[in-house]
This record gives sequence, structure tokens and C-alpha cells, in this order.
Amino acid sequence: MRPSGRAPDEMRAITIETGFTKHAEGSCLISFGDTRVLCNASVEERIPPWLRGKGEGWVTGEYSMLPRSTHTRGQREAAKGKQSGRTQEIQRLIGRSLRAVVDLKKLGERQITLDCDVLQADGGTRTASITGAWIALRIAIDKLMAEGAIKEDPITGQVAAISCGIFNGTPVLDLDYPEDSSAEADANFVLIEGGQIAEVQATAEGATYDEEGLLRLLRLARMGCDRIFAEQRNAVK
Amino acid sequence: MRPSGRAPDEMRAITIETGFTKHAEGSCLISFGDTRVLCNASVEERIPPWLRGKGEGWVTGEYSMLPRSTHTRGQREAAKGKQSGRTQEIQRLIGRSLRAVVDLKKLGERQITLDCDVLQADGGTRTASITGAWIALRIAIDKLMAEGAIKEDPITGQVAAISCGIFNGTPVLDLDYPEDSSAEADANFVLIEGGQIAEVQATAEGATYDEEGLLRLLRLARMGCDRIFAEQRNAVK
Amino acid sequence: MRPSGRAPDEMRAITIETGFTKHAEGSCLISFGDTRVLCNASVEERIPPWLRGKGEGWVTGEYSMLPRSTHTRGQREAAKGKQSGRTQEIQRLIGRSLRAVVDLKKLGERQITLDCDVLQADGGTRTASITGAWIALRIAIDKLMAEGAIKEDPITGQVAAISCGIFNGTPVLDLDYPEDSSAEADANFVLIEGGQIAEVQATAEGATYDEEGLLRLLRLARMGCDRIFAEQRNAVK
Amino acid sequence: MRPSGRAPDEMRAITIETGFTKHAEGSCLISFGDTRVLCNASVEERIPPWLRGKGEGWVTGEYSMLPRSTHTRGQREAAKGKQSGRTQEIQRLIGRSLRAVVDLKKLGERQITLDCDVLQADGGTRTASITGAWIALRIAIDKLMAEGAIKEDPITGQVAAISCGIFNGTPVLDLDYPEDSSAEADANFVLIEGGQIAEVQATAEGATYDEEGLLRLLRLARMGCDRIFAEQRNAVK
Amino acid sequence: MRPSGRAPDEMRAITIETGFTKHAEGSCLISFGDTRVLCNASVEERIPPWLRGKGEGWVTGEYSMLPRSTHTRGQREAAKGKQSGRTQEIQRLIGRSLRAVVDLKKLGERQITLDCDVLQADGGTRTASITGAWIALRIAIDKLMAEGAIKEDPITGQVAAISCGIFNGTPVLDLDYPEDSSAEADANFVLIEGGQIAEVQATAEGATYDEEGLLRLLRLARMGCDRIFAEQRNAVK
Amino acid sequence: MRPSGRAPDEMRAITIETGFTKHAEGSCLISFGDTRVLCNASVEERIPPWLRGKGEGWVTGEYSMLPRSTHTRGQREAAKGKQSGRTQEIQRLIGRSLRAVVDLKKLGERQITLDCDVLQADGGTRTASITGAWIALRIAIDKLMAEGAIKEDPITGQVAAISCGIFNGTPVLDLDYPEDSSAEADANFVLIEGGQIAEVQATAEGATYDEEGLLRLLRLARMGCDRIFAEQRNAVK
Repeated sequence: MRPSGRAPDEMRAITIETGFTKHAEGSCLISFGDTRVLCNASVEERIPPWLRGKGEGWVTGEYSMLPRSTHTRGQREAAKGKQSGRTQEIQRLIGRSLRAVVDLKKLGERQITLDCDVLQADGGTRTASITGAWIALRIAIDKLMAEGAIKEDPITGQVAAISCGIFNGTPVLDLDYPEDSSAEADANFVLIEGGQIAEVQATAEGATYDEEGLLRLLRLARMGCDRIFAEQRNAVK
Repeated sequence: MRPSGRAPDEMRAITIETGFTKHAEGSCLISFGDTRVLCNASVEERIPPWLRGKGEGWVTGEYSMLPRSTHTRGQREAAKGKQSGRTQEIQRLIGRSLRAVVDLKKLGERQITLDCDVLQADGGTRTASITGAWIALRIAIDKLMAEGAIKEDPITGQVAAISCGIFNGTPVLDLDYPEDSSAEADANFVLIEGGQIAEVQATAEGATYDEEGLLRLLRLARMGCDRIFAEQRNAVK
Repeated sequence: MRPSGRAPDEMRAITIETGFTKHAEGSCLISFGDTRVLCNASVEERIPPWLRGKGEGWVTGEYSMLPRSTHTRGQREAAKGKQSGRTQEIQRLIGRSLRAVVDLKKLGERQITLDCDVLQADGGTRTASITGAWIALRIAIDKLMAEGAIKEDPITGQVAAISCGIFNGTPVLDLDYPEDSSAEADANFVLIEGGQIAEVQATAEGATYDEEGLLRLLRLARMGCDRIFAEQRNAVK
Repeated sequence: MRPSGRAPDEMRAITIETGFTKHAEGSCLISFGDTRVLCNASVEERIPPWLRGKGEGWVTGEYSMLPRSTHTRGQREAAKGKQSGRTQEIQRLIGRSLRAVVDLKKLGERQITLDCDVLQADGGTRTASITGAWIALRIAIDKLMAEGAIKEDPITGQVAAISCGIFNGTPVLDLDYPEDSSAEADANFVLIEGGQIAEVQATAEGATYDEEGLLRLLRLARMGCDRIFAEQRNAVK
Repeated sequence: MRPSGRAPDEMRAITIETGFTKHAEGSCLISFGDTRVLCNASVEERIPPWLRGKGEGWVTGEYSMLPRSTHTRGQREAAKGKQSGRTQEIQRLIGRSLRAVVDLKKLGERQITLDCDVLQADGGTRTASITGAWIALRIAIDKLMAEGAIKEDPITGQVAAISCGIFNGTPVLDLDYPEDSSAEADANFVLIEGGQIAEVQATAEGATYDEEGLLRLLRLARMGCDRIFAEQRNAVK
Repeated sequence: MRPSGRAPDEMRAITIETGFTKHAEGSCLISFGDTRVLCNASVEERIPPWLRGKGEGWVTGEYSMLPRSTHTRGQREAAKGKQSGRTQEIQRLIGRSLRAVVDLKKLGERQITLDCDVLQADGGTRTASITGAWIALRIAIDKLMAEGAIKEDPITGQVAAISCGIFNGTPVLDLDYPEDSSAEADANFVLIEGGQIAEVQATAEGATYDEEGLLRLLRLARMGCDRIFAEQRNAVK
């Protein structure tokens, strides 16, 4: 029995509101149940120093949780003076995941930053961030193509992410916070439309799992992402 | 002529959506035209070290702009490792303004933090923050009173803020970003329902102003705040 | 009754010792009673990056209190690793106030930094800083003009500042520390010789004040600054 | 063809020198070919604040690369003033991996820190760190048990880690630096003696991979860890 | 020939103004020629955590140069966010030097901090700081004794410091800035009244020196300190 | 009686293992008894900004202790976010000492960084660092000369360092940790082969010392360094 009453392979309601902010070149507010993340894509006509002269662009991600996006208030990282290890880990994952579906040569010498700010958290904020960031990126690149700044589409496919885990001995899809905090194993899958894997991060918590467990989680994730890919296409259509 | 076509004493549309997030004890998303600020009140049963043993509580404010709330992306303060002088100045102002209408003895030994996060900026983010923070605070304290944690209402009145300025020689109410960036004088007024002043910050930009100018701005502010006080009451009713 | 026995509109003794240090292009030690601030103007033939190519100069301020300028020792900001919000707020105010009387085009592509270091504090350190900084700036620019580096005087007027407040219900001029720490309202006025206002920062502490109160404080400030303007002229003559 | 001439399932030479430093409660210098990591276990009779009163201990990891452990010198993190995202990510992984085989209740109210300092790097530093940290931990806990400080062995099993990847289309075991920097996919497996998985981190680089690819890498890792478990047992015997 | 025209064993004029600030328990402004340092002693009824329960006090030093104490303006350490290696080295030296003449048991469980802030620099700021700090400390402790807070004098002697160096092949006493920046060897001596040495820091710059050179510098220092000890006694009498 | 049973003028066993790491241009692991320091020289074809256009190179040192090189674990400076005053003091000393025997003109426009990382500490880590750094530097420069990058040898001599102290009233050579922590005086000498002094840092701890004491320590140091110079020559031969 899942705390939410969902079936093991049942995802939370997904809603996507594109254009949530007006300044960003691409923007959406994505929700997986009570988890809500604002994803903004910013296009800048500059590249990191180490890319200069290569004729390539760059795609990167940043992530933050508003102090009271969580059950109890967390201290602001800007006030602490540094980003936590968790924040940096997630930022790196977002950037890597998006770059898995972008041809940086075709992007040209510009940088796109995907800012993922969690307005409300209920588990799965990093996977919602990746999923929403792809939408914001797609919108921003469509705009660049409409303006003629880019000739050929640099996006090679869709990328989305979902968490799965073993909860009370059962593999379940799309963990919410109560599940996430007591699951025996917790895995985040970043998948690419068509069946390829961009990233797997599977961690045992307390108990461990075996090859069979890993495969069952992967299959749940694939099922979940197929539905997410459809939502993404619908949002940017 | 104002860039927006508004009359000198015409404010932007105000919308207030209470309960925008679910974890905070008080929450609202407040908009003044395209300026949108998420204000969350967090109640914590602890007080700053320097207040211990005084039988009083504390009310404080924090402020941040999302990186792409503005026309061009700003670097994240958490990534820079420190909060800017502007951010700290605004945070101090928010806290002071709210404390002007709270009896800290009646609040008891607890702290309420008002987090004001700017989702989209178009001028007047600090005044929208103060205005929305009062609503979040009111909701949070109503909850504490409903739970019986507080016996007597510690809120002594309503506080709201608005910016005024001299634009092309004319005093105008509720500056938006195009006005703010080219006004000759820029003043933020924090007023208390009933006619009292909590704070005035009036700065000449390029030109200077005289006593008469200051009074005309104050009168505009008073007019504006009267309307805001009504919106606040409506929101928390 | 003021703790010092002064009349409500009576200022403390002002002394100004120009040339207090020898390396700075302009230097003075200014005292308002027991408040003593060392103000040094440094001319550098460089400008901030964002001003490049505009043919303009820049004037900025920095502020610090020596650890034992106060009744009890405060921790050194350099040891804490960051400047407090109060320090940054004051630094920004000093810079803005001085720029209100400088034509940056006429200054040419150079930067003048006004360092205001409080040797001893007894209330009114920020207003003494602005007042002394103008003197240091005037001396530094006179030197640049004498050397022929600047043709036309970039200083358009005199700027000075003074604090006023409501103490035991009475508006008083030039608050010292005992008054400052228990005043009902505290206002800093930055005025320009001739009657214009550069900045007003008026804050209610505990009690609030109304339009009439604000005007009475402004009039006291005007009276005080008239005397300060005379002292400034005398010092740089 | 692997740059080193190794067969796809061939690991590098492993050497383990226990007692490399004398102050640490457990210490070893572990080498996988040219990758050399000094792993020290420090026992402290204190626990993190959030564990107080739970009757449990804590196991955590820290990681650093000496500035010239790499081909070109890297800036010291202490000089930069912060640890990189990569460092923090690895530190968190080391701690999590070790905790997967420790019963924190049996450890009692003490903390063991595993410091993993890379003296020389040639790929696989994080997996060598985990593998060596287990040895240092085992030695430190044997010492605590010999002293009678711990009654029952808190270590529930062996943990080790190895990297695998797809290089030129072929799954290979134990990537060295030349392989790591050009592999199409790179996966780190943290395995537990007996067949369980503690953690999988599999990342596509450029190309992506599918379920079959993930399984082939997992099987290689299992083969590699079986040999590592034997080396660990030999070292602490 | 020394740039200043002084004889090799001739010191600069020394002036000492005690009571330069009013809040500090001990205060003096000390000058060696154009080098001017404000030394304040602050007594606090608390001790560092690692001294608790030992029945001892602590004496420590802090040091800073005002940004424009030097020929060209230096960036404020508080703005840079950290103290330089040079600053920390000098702070440690000041504390060590003063502790060489204080019986920490007799001081009792309190801390005295000697803040040495350089108002104007012309070489020898660290030695002037030590010399002035002793005076401030002496005054502060006299006050504690007069109040009855301390029964027995914890100060065991006088400590003073002076720099010597080899300039154009000649050993000279009390280097000023032009000498300091081009001396072949530069040595700071911290001496105790009566002939003992508290600290020697002698550094070759470009050239090196031998035992004979070191001795000649030490003898010059001894001569200089004898005069300084007299000035100190005179100041606190 | 020394805790180790050594005679007053007896040094600890010295071992030097060159080529300890393979990436650095020069590398050695140096031991003085249980003190072990890894010294790596890194050559970079760049110079600090302030040296540009002078046709000179630069030699600098960095120093760190591994967290568990000491009896009890110390917090990692990278985790604290800053280097301690002690670390910076030692780094500056290492750089200065090496530059005393390098002709920076002959080095050409390149920088050599000497990283000294303490693997195990038992007193005398800074002097071991200087001694080992010279060896790493010699190896790196021999390599540059063999490659023809440098024509003329920029190294003008050998430099080495040793600590001496007054322990139980007796001057002793090469202090180990038990001596270092209870010596009455502690002096570090940096000497140059042939009899010159590069640096003396002599500090009284508790007791003080006189000219005679200083000379006796210097003579011990000279005896010790003569033996070290022979070990250095042997190591790089």
C-alpha cells in the first residue's frame, strides 16, 4: 500500500504551464502532484572560457529550492554563502542530462542556462527539473530557430527523468516525499525517447538490491517516461 | 506620458493568490502588474540567541530574485557565495516594516520569517514584498491563534508599501521598471493603515527634489496604500 | 530633556582636521562630538568595467568601524569574511550622496573612492561620513584641477548629512548614541546646499510618525546642514 | 583494443599497504595501477548534532586530490575557498557506500571519518577510495573491538567499487584515465560481497546505452569486485 | 646614505598619544615618523573555548591597514572576504609577543584583544603595533587593578619591537618604507626589557647574510629598544 | 634527556624517495623520522599577472597537512573554506626560501609551484618541506635543462632548513613533536650551502632567550644543515 493510495505503477498528476514567466526565452511551471518546479531557459550570446574558439555552444543547469518549499524551512544557500553538495550534484545532473540530447556544434557559440527553482517540494524535484528543463529548452531553441539565429535543430531527441524505488518490498513508480524518505532503494533514471538510457543513479538505503531489482525499477521508469514524453510533446506543440 | 499609458496616480493591477504553497504557515503570490513575488511565512519555535530570556518573539524578512526574474539573467547569489548589498538592504527593510505592526511580546518566544522570492520583476519588488509579507504573516498568525498557541493578536495594524517617483518632471505612483530606471527621484514609502509612516526612503537620481516634491510623493503613496490596504483585507478575510 | 543637556535644535561641536593622512589625495578627520571619522579620497586612473568606453568617471564610498570604536568590541568584518548588511547599506548611501553633486562626465575616466573609517562612534557615523567625504573629495578634485588633469570643476555643489529623530516625543537634531538607541523615530537627511534633497531615510522605531513629524525633522535637518555647509566651506578654503 | 593492452575484463594490478600512516586508527595506501589513494580512518568520540540522543554512531567520508596528483596541476580547493561539486559528490558517495555495511547502532555514539586523499590519479579514484576506505574502517573497528570499546561487530559485510564503461563499443572493466576520458559510457558500481548492489551511477557520455549495455557493465563489475573482495580480506587478515 | 638622511643607528621620532579613543580600556596612537598606528586594548569577560576551566586568561592581537594608509589604495580585506597571509602572520606575532610578558594565570579568566589599526604606513607597522599594544595593554591592566578586578600584576615586563636591515651593505636601525622596499635583509626583533629576546624574524631579500650580520642587526635592535622602553614608561607613567 | 633518547645534536633518520609521484616534473617523499612530506614541483608556462613583461619567472610554495597526519584529526581547510594563518605563514616561508637560491631571470617566463603535502606529522614539517622542495625543484629544473627549455642553470645554490630549540634548558637539534610542544624556545633556520642565512624565525615560548642562546641554536642548525645538504646532493645525483 502506497501512502497516497496509488498503484505501484501509477504516476502522480502531471501539469505543465508554459510561459509562466515572461522574460525567459523558454519557461514552464511543471508539477508532479505537489512537487512544483519553475524551469526557465536563458539564452546568452557568450560561452564559458574553456570553449572559446571551438565553434560550439554550451548547455548547463542550475537548481535551488525556495527556503519554504519543504515541510520545515531550510536556510537560504545565499545566506550560508555556499551551495550544498546535494545542490551541486543535482545541477551537474541537469546539465549532463540536457546535453545528452543537444548537438553543441549546431547550437553555435551561445550558452543556454536552465534554471530549475523548486517552489514546492514533495519528492522527485530533480527528475521534475530535468523533465521541465527540456520543455524550456525546446521553447527557447524554437525561438532561436524562428528568429533565424540557428539554422538546424540542435536538439536530437527528448529527455525526461523519473524516480522509482523499492517501498515496503515493492517496486513503485514516481516516489513522493513520504515514500522517498522511507524507501529501501531509490533510483533516478534519465531516459531518452526511443529506449536509450542517459543516466542511472540507484542507491540502496538501509537494504540493498540485486540485478533483478534494478531491472524492475528500470522497466517501471521506462513506462513512466513514455507517458512523460507524451506530456512534453503536448506542452511544446 | 507614462510608458504604460497610466495616469500619474494610477496603480497597476493588483492580484493576490493566498495559499500558493502548501507547507508555509502563511503564503501568497502577489502581483503588481508584471511584478510577481511569492511571500511565505514560516513559524519556528525558536528565537535568535540575543533574544533569549526576554519573553519576546522575532519577525524577520528574507528576499531574493530568481536568476531569470529580470530581463537578462543575473548570477545566483548562492553561486556567488554572498548576498549583494541591495539584497541585504531590502531584507532589513522588510523585517523592520513588519515589526512596526507586531507586538513581539504578544507573539511569544517564536520567530516568523517572511521569505519574499521574486518570480518575475518589473519594478517595485521590495514594496510588493512588504505588502505580500503582511498577508502571509496575517495568515500565519491567524493559524497560531486558531490553534491556541497565541492568545492575543500580536498584529497591531496593517502595513503596506508603494514606490512613487518623479518621472519626466511629474510625480507618479507605482513605478514600473521602465519608469524606475529613468526616474529623476525614486521613493519607497512604508505606511501604516490609519495615516502613520513606518519608513521613507527617497533618493534623488540625477536631479534632486525639494520639500514640496517629497510631500507630493508622500500624498500619492498614501492614496496608493489606501487601495492596497483594502486589497490586503480582502485577501485575508 | 536630551541626555547631553542640548537644546532640541542644538548640534554637537564639529571639528574638521584636513590633511590628517598624507598619502590620500584628499583627507580629513571629522568629529561631531565624540563621533570621529577619518575620510580619505583616493584617485585612481581606472574605472569599473561596466563604465568602459562611456567617457565618464565614477565616485564610490566604503565604510568601516574600527572594532573598538564602539562601547563594546565588535568582531572585525575582515575576520568574519563578509561585510554586514548595515555596512553595505551605508557604503551605498555614501556613494550615492556624493554622486548627487558630481558631474561624472567632467570627472573623466577615473575613479575616486571615499574611505570612511570610524575611529570612534557616538551616533551619526554615516552622516558624519558623508559630510567628511565631501571635504576629502573637494580637496582631491582641487588637486586634480591644480595639476591640470581636470579642466572644468566636476563638483556641482555641496552635500552634507545629518540625523534627526523623535526623542521622548520631541523632534531633535543630531542624535548621539544614547538618543539614537532609544529614539521613537530616526531619520537621516542628505541635503544639498541651496535647499534640495538628495536622500531621506526615515524609520519609525517602535512608534511611527506622520507627515507633520516628517516635515519637522526635515526642517531641523535643513537648519543643521546650513551650519555644516559653512563648516565645510571653511575647511576647504 | 584498450590503450593499456589489457583484455576487456582485465583489471589493473591492485596493491594494498596497510598501516601507511601511524596516527590514524586504520590506514592503507591502495593502488589500482597508477591510481594511488591514501585512506585513513579516524575514530572520534563525538557525533553530529542531529544524531544526539539516538544511541547511534556515524560513518562519513572525505575526499581530496593533491594538486599535482593529475597530469596538470589543479588549484588547491583550500586556496579557492570551496570544495568543487565533484568533490562533494564523491564524498557523499563514499560515506553512503560505507554506511551500507555498518550497523550504526552497534557502532555506538562515535563517528568514524574516512579520509581518502588521492596521491596520484589515473582513473577510478572514487572507486579505489571506497575500496580502500572499507579496509581502513575494518582495521579501525577491529582496534575498537580489541580495546573492548565495541562489543559486537558493527560491520555487516564487505563493500567495494569498480568502474566499467563502454570504450570503442566494447564493455570494459576498470577504466584508466585514457579510457575514462573518451569512453562512450561510464559507470561506477558499489557492490556488496554476496551479490547485492549498494549503488549504481551510470552516465552516457556522447552516446547513450540501453538495458542490455547496463547489464553487461554490471556483470563485469561483479566479476571485478569478486577479485577485490579477496584482496580486501587478504589485506585485513 | 639613508634616503631620510638619518645615521645608521638613528631612529625616527617617536610620539605616543594615550587615550586617543575613549571606549577602549587602553588606547594609544603611536607614531614612528610617518608610521601611525592606533592601538586599542579591549577587555572581555570571556575566554576562548579551548581555555575553559583552566583558570587562565588570554591575550591576542588583531591587525589591519586602512585602505589608504599606503601610497596606493589597497582593497579592504572585509570586501575581499578574507585576511591576507601577511595580516594573519602579523596578528599572530602581536599576540605571541604580548603573551611573552603576561602571566595568564594572574590575568584570570578574561581576554584582552589588542587591535592595531594602521592609519598611515611608512615602514615598520608591525613593530610599531607591538610597541603600542604593550602601552594599551598596560593601561587596560592598570584599570583592572584599580577596579580591584585583578589583585596581582600579570605583566611581567616590557616588550617592544623594532626593525633593522642591511641597506646598501650597511646595517641600519628602524627602516622606513623606502629602505624596507629595497633592503638586502630585513629583520624584526621583539625584545624584552632587560636583554631577553622574544622573537627574531630575519629574512634575506635578494642577498643573504651571515652570523656576523645577524649579530650586528641584533645589537642595533637592542639599542633601539632601550630607547623605546623609556618612551613606553614615560607614556604610561 | 630528550624524549626520543637522542643526543642534543643528533638528528632523526632522513630518507628521501625521489620520483614518488609520476606526473610532477619533480617529486620526492622526504622523511625526518616519522615526519613525512610529499614535495612535488609543477612547471607551468605562465607567470603571475604582476610579473608580466619583466622577462622573469616565479617560484612559489603551497603547504597542507592531510587531516589525519596528526595525532587527532584536523578539519580539512577546503571544508572550512579558508587556509589558516599558520598554513599561509608556512607557504610564504617555503616560497621565500626557494627564491633565495633561484635566479628568476634565468628561469624565464614560467612558474614553478612547490606543493608540500604532509602525509604524517611529528614536528618539523615546515623545515622538511623546504628541504624536500629544493630536491623537487632541482629535479624539475634538470628536466627543463635536459629538454633545452632553459640554457643556464637558474639555481644558485642549495637551501635547507632545520628546527632547533631549547628543551629543558638545553639547546637541541631537529625537534620532534613531543619536544616542539614543550620547548622553551623554538627556532627555524633556513640556511644556504656555504654558510649564509636565508631566514631565521626564533620564538620564545614561555621562557625567553638571549643572544648567546640564539647563537648556540644557529650553530646547531648549521651542523644539521651540513648533513642535510649532503643528503640532498645524494638524492639528486
